[in-house]
Amino acid sequence: MSVIVSDIRKGAYYDSAFLMKLQRSLTELQGVEDAGVVMGTEENKEILKHIELVDKQVLDANPDDLVIVVRAATGNEAEEALGQVDELLVKRSTEMDKNYRPKSLDTASKMLPGASWTLVSVAGRFAANVARESLKLGKHVFLFSDNVSVEDEISLKKEAAEKGLLVMGPDCGTAMINGIGLGFANKIRKGPIGVIAAAGTGLQQVTTRIHQLGSGITHGIGTGGRDLKEAVGAMTFLMGLDALARDPETKVIVMVSKPPAPSVAEKVIKKARLINKPVVVNFIARKPTARQDGNLWFATGMDDAAALAVELAKNPPEVKPAVDLKLERFAEGQKYFRGLFSGGTLAYEAQFLLEEYVGRVWANAPINKENKLKDSLKSEEHSIVDLGEDEFTVGRLHPMMDNEMRIRRLLEEGKDPEVAVIMLDVVIGYGSHPDPASELAPAIAKAKAEAEKAGRFLEVVVVATGTDLDPQNLDNQIDQLRKVGAWVSSSNEEVVRYAGRILMGLDKKVDSEFTFTPVNLETLKNELQALNIGLDSFAENLEDQEIQVVQVDFKPPAGGNEKMASILERMKKN
Amino acid sequence: MSVIVSDIRKGAYYDSAFLMKLQRSLTELQGVEDAGVVMGTEENKEILKHIELVDKQVLDANPDDLVIVVRAATGNEAEEALGQVDELLVKRSTEMDKNYRPKSLDTASKMLPGASWTLVSVAGRFAANVARESLKLGKHVFLFSDNVSVEDEISLKKEAAEKGLLVMGPDCGTAMINGIGLGFANKIRKGPIGVIAAAGTGLQQVTTRIHQLGSGITHGIGTGGRDLKEAVGAMTFLMGLDALARDPETKVIVMVSKPPAPSVAEKVIKKARLINKPVVVNFIARKPTARQDGNLWFATGMDDAAALAVELAKNPPEVKPAVDLKLERFAEGQKYFRGLFSGGTLAYEAQFLLEEYVGRVWANAPINKENKLKDSLKSEEHSIVDLGEDEFTVGRLHPMMDNEMRIRRLLEEGKDPEVAVIMLDVVIGYGSHPDPASELAPAIAKAKAEAEKAGRFLEVVVVATGTDLDPQNLDNQIDQLRKVGAWVSSSNEEVVRYAGRILMGLDKKVDSEFTFTPVNLETLKNELQALNIGLDSFAENLEDQEIQVVQVDFKPPAGGNEKMASILERMKKN
Repeated sequence: MSVIVSDIRKGAYYDSAFLMKLQRSLTELQGVEDAGVVMGTEENKEILKHIELVDKQVLDANPDDLVIVVRAATGNEAEEALGQVDELLVKRSTEMDKNYRPKSLDTASKMLPGASWTLVSVAGRFAANVARESLKLGKHVFLFSDNVSVEDEISLKKEAAEKGLLVMGPDCGTAMINGIGLGFANKIRKGPIGVIAAAGTGLQQVTTRIHQLGSGITHGIGTGGRDLKEAVGAMTFLMGLDALARDPETKVIVMVSKPPAPSVAEKVIKKARLINKPVVVNFIARKPTARQDGNLWFATGMDDAAALAVELAKNPPEVKPAVDLKLERFAEGQKYFRGLFSGGTLAYEAQFLLEEYVGRVWANAPINKENKLKDSLKSEEHSIVDLGEDEFTVGRLHPMMDNEMRIRRLLEEGKDPEVAVIMLDVVIGYGSHPDPASELAPAIAKAKAEAEKAGRFLEVVVVATGTDLDPQNLDNQIDQLRKVGAWVSSSNEEVVRYAGRILMGLDKKVDSEFTFTPVNLETLKNELQALNIGLDSFAENLEDQEIQVVQVDFKPPAGGNEKMASILERMKKN
Repeated sequence: MSVIVSDIRKGAYYDSAFLMKLQRSLTELQGVEDAGVVMGTEENKEILKHIELVDKQVLDANPDDLVIVVRAATGNEAEEALGQVDELLVKRSTEMDKNYRPKSLDTASKMLPGASWTLVSVAGRFAANVARESLKLGKHVFLFSDNVSVEDEISLKKEAAEKGLLVMGPDCGTAMINGIGLGFANKIRKGPIGVIAAAGTGLQQVTTRIHQLGSGITHGIGTGGRDLKEAVGAMTFLMGLDALARDPETKVIVMVSKPPAPSVAEKVIKKARLINKPVVVNFIARKPTARQDGNLWFATGMDDAAALAVELAKNPPEVKPAVDLKLERFAEGQKYFRGLFSGGTLAYEAQFLLEEYVGRVWANAPINKENKLKDSLKSEEHSIVDLGEDEFTVGRLHPMMDNEMRIRRLLEEGKDPEVAVIMLDVVIGYGSHPDPASELAPAIAKAKAEAEKAGRFLEVVVVATGTDLDPQNLDNQIDQLRKVGAWVSSSNEEVVRYAGRILMGLDKKVDSEFTFTPVNLETLKNELQALNIGLDSFAENLEDQEIQVVQVDFKPPAGGNEKMASILERMKKN
């Protein structure tokens, strides 16, 4: 039978590296089977329970308490182990006294005035205040600590944005600035690829793969895994992306993220489209709808992202400037898309692609049920109607044979003052109408003329499906449609993306734009110097990389007693 | 003021091409503003209402009734138009009498014994019976008709599977067999690419793009848009895929579908993996998790699918035979995956990839909330735990620095007799443990040895993230892990896919396998001859392609009166 004994020390604070060492020392003692040394949080008590290392005293501990628990073969051996704790603690404080360490960031900053960076890895509940102090001193913050509230994250990032500073984190595992690794970081060759990542090991995995493929990086900027969530809105990501876009040594940018909020992902991608460099996108679980679109390349995973980036850096593609969409032709209030299809698959693919640009698309045959049009005869907002669906073809010819229903609907949609773009498909070949353009082109001309008379511009776009060998001849059909001003392509994707770009351009929703002071590129390129507060090992790593660093000796305010600390904080403010 | 008058003809049946012609003739008459000639279904009455072409009599019409409605400037003109209907109907029946047409499929089949195909485009409610008759005569069915019930579809496809016949449809718009278009079909160059599509215009769009890119096709097999829905289970798709796999002229296969049921999509992809040819997959709205995996290439859209197929046909890749997974090493009942990660992004990507192989994966940090582990300390079925999540790191070192929690968990998971594969990540670099493999390798050895003692085989797979320049050196870490029998790669994706293939192989769920008689390839390659029942234009199209066709004169049983027809049907059976 084993015996479990414990010792609870009220309100004692030690960093987690020390707790690990203490636990290991205890485990190695004579007769000790297992030992735990942790702060008394609910999660930690659950874990201790799971590995059968609890007694009543442990279960009653508070989050501020240091819990020391030992399971040993005999009661004597267990008590003996606990008895050694004090000795181990004293050894620790002697070690700490070996070198002089400043007690505050302020003092540390004076000791190393060239430091542009602070690495923060103190316990989560103290981290936001430390980071705030660092921003006040004008330093970028690498915020490794987790268990920081999202409210603190937002307020820190807002303050940083005003000052042109980066807050990487909280819970930022990794950054590589100008060849120097912060936190968990690999030694990566210098090279032409800049990486921005809301993903700690994502940044490590992609950059190590880039290295393995023989290339290298300028900077690897981490943002913390929550940066692309709705609440944070990609503040650090957008600032980092902007820095990489301006950095002349970065030729290709890779964006990596843990599963992002879809709307934030779209916001970031929208910004990335404006960059005059190839950008590789790898957002986990975001379905790519294209391999390439303009300057963007969509990767299927981290391996693929690394391989694409290396290839693009080796053989730089020509990044074409955006086409002028002549948005000034449209009238105020024109903003919606109406797709009138005869082909179901074309309609489905159009929905799938268009959602990337405009969000929700209503349809009579929707990909997701919640986007079903209430009434197939009445469009709402952005809508796609497949007129070849069963509901329209009972005792009636398919719309590829009979254009009547589509022509009626085209003229009807054209009258809607909120409609900007109408899309049709013209599918030729055996079985189809012998000359669909001969009926559709006059209707398109009429719809466009009516809109013009009403002071609007109606863009009618057409995907034409067929070949030069078809009885109707594809070029002949395309010619007839172009003559009346339709925008025509034989690629469904090209047509939808063209429409999507127009609709994105016309979207006047006040896009509570995130504004920020740009990061000073010199602070990324100058020889790195840093303050470190929290894990000693992070300072040691910097020293191994021959970087000047000052370690700050962190003691929580009021010895870790949170009530007391908040009183102190309030007193400071007054 | 316009006047609306209508004429309802009880239980009269005409095909939809004729109804369109009659409607157009009426519209062209003096004073007529608009006219509608349709069967009196609810949908059609809705459409007439929408375009303001109804009176009380029209609203009361039944689905079996022919509705003729005219809006004209004056009552006289409207009545005059209606008065012409009989004359137009007589003209029609005279036209019909010009050529002798068999009244039944049976007779038609005797007139053209070489016909392997029947094209069916009669009104939906009669189509299933016609198709059934055709199967009885041993012919493939191209079933253009829509509004056919899914129950009928299933029973037709089951019967066809027994006979080695294809039922393309219902609602199959397109097929191209050996260069001949059935239904809506384009004239496509002959070439090395075979296409199978649960997508009518999808088949047209992809094949026209292939043609435009200078290549061509062997066959384009349509299945109807519902074939990849749960209820139908891809019966025609799997038979068609099998035919293309066996066809020596088909060098590359393209699979296209409207949004499929996810489980059916996976079933089809699983079959496609076994084919010794490159297969391009383009299932709309199914997110590709890789660009390439074995013999499969995943396209982002129809353009991309066509381009990939043409490229693969031009430069045939070497399709490697599947690696032997030595599944016999595992004991009965071993079937689950347990991922124990220190890196969050690696854990997310693993979830995302693994779901493709095994379906649901539980996680403490899941991509979709519904997959959240109830208790992070207890795995269920397939599970992925990120031990770097906040819940594990309060006052405790990150698992990249401290391996203790992971080692405990590894040994615990290894004891579970249902576990087949355990995955770890080993992330090195600055900040990480100075030699993680030195602690993890002995634990892996222990877990494997314990499993062996219990009569099981435990596969431990590891993704190792790092570089040759890292303090721990990547190769050194990999060597230590391999020495104890771990399966290691620096690609997260490669590790997960290897595990996924093992788990798929071990999945013993009785896979109510769909069995069928293979389609006789000769029936696809011999000179095509066909019977056509329904739209005259489909027969005309075949004649234009110099194909022998017999048009069957379809009259619905009991003149379209469904009650009477069902009595007749029952009498026949007795």
